[in-house]
Amino acid sequence: MFVILVYDVNEKRVAKALKTCRKYLTWIQNSVFEGDIGEANLKKLKLELNKMLHNDEDSVILYRFESLNYSRREVIGQEKNAQEFII
Amino acid sequence: MFVILVYDVNEKRVAKALKTCRKYLTWIQNSVFEGDIGEANLKKLKLELNKMLHNDEDSVILYRFESLNYSRREVIGQEKNAQEFII
Repeated sequence: MFVILVYDVNEKRVAKALKTCRKYLTWIQNSVFEGDIGEANLKKLKLELNKMLHNDEDSVILYRFESLNYSRREVIGQEKNAQEFII
Repeated sequence: MFVILVYDVNEKRVAKALKTCRKYLTWIQNSVFEGDIGEANLKKLKLELNKMLHNDEDSVILYRFESLNYSRREVIGQEKNAQEFII
């Protein structure tokens, strides 16, 4: 399935969260990731994040799309990961 | 169309960016918004953000979906806007 993930975590845990998410998804910009991922890997990713994050401070939001990709991604301002940027 | 918007802006401009995005979309969590929006309003939103943001520091990422809604939204950790939260 196609997934968009956005996190907002305490800065103490940002580096670790970034590393974990990049194992499974493509880093798009700041705290935004996307990619095709299977159920098994998504489960692993969620387990790893659950272990690492502090539920009283951090949050991760995960959009799942069964099959369809987004039709367009636009950026206003900085393109922090221009290399991966495709319209 | 259905839109997911994520911003990462300097804290000096967060309050203004939040206010602007909430005029057009539903605030989901932290810097994440979503909603159905027409072309005219999307154009207005982009214009307002372009005027307000500093392109060397801030960035906004905008996913556009022509018709389909996401099939599932999940949260790990804090639900900062639980009232609007629907699975």
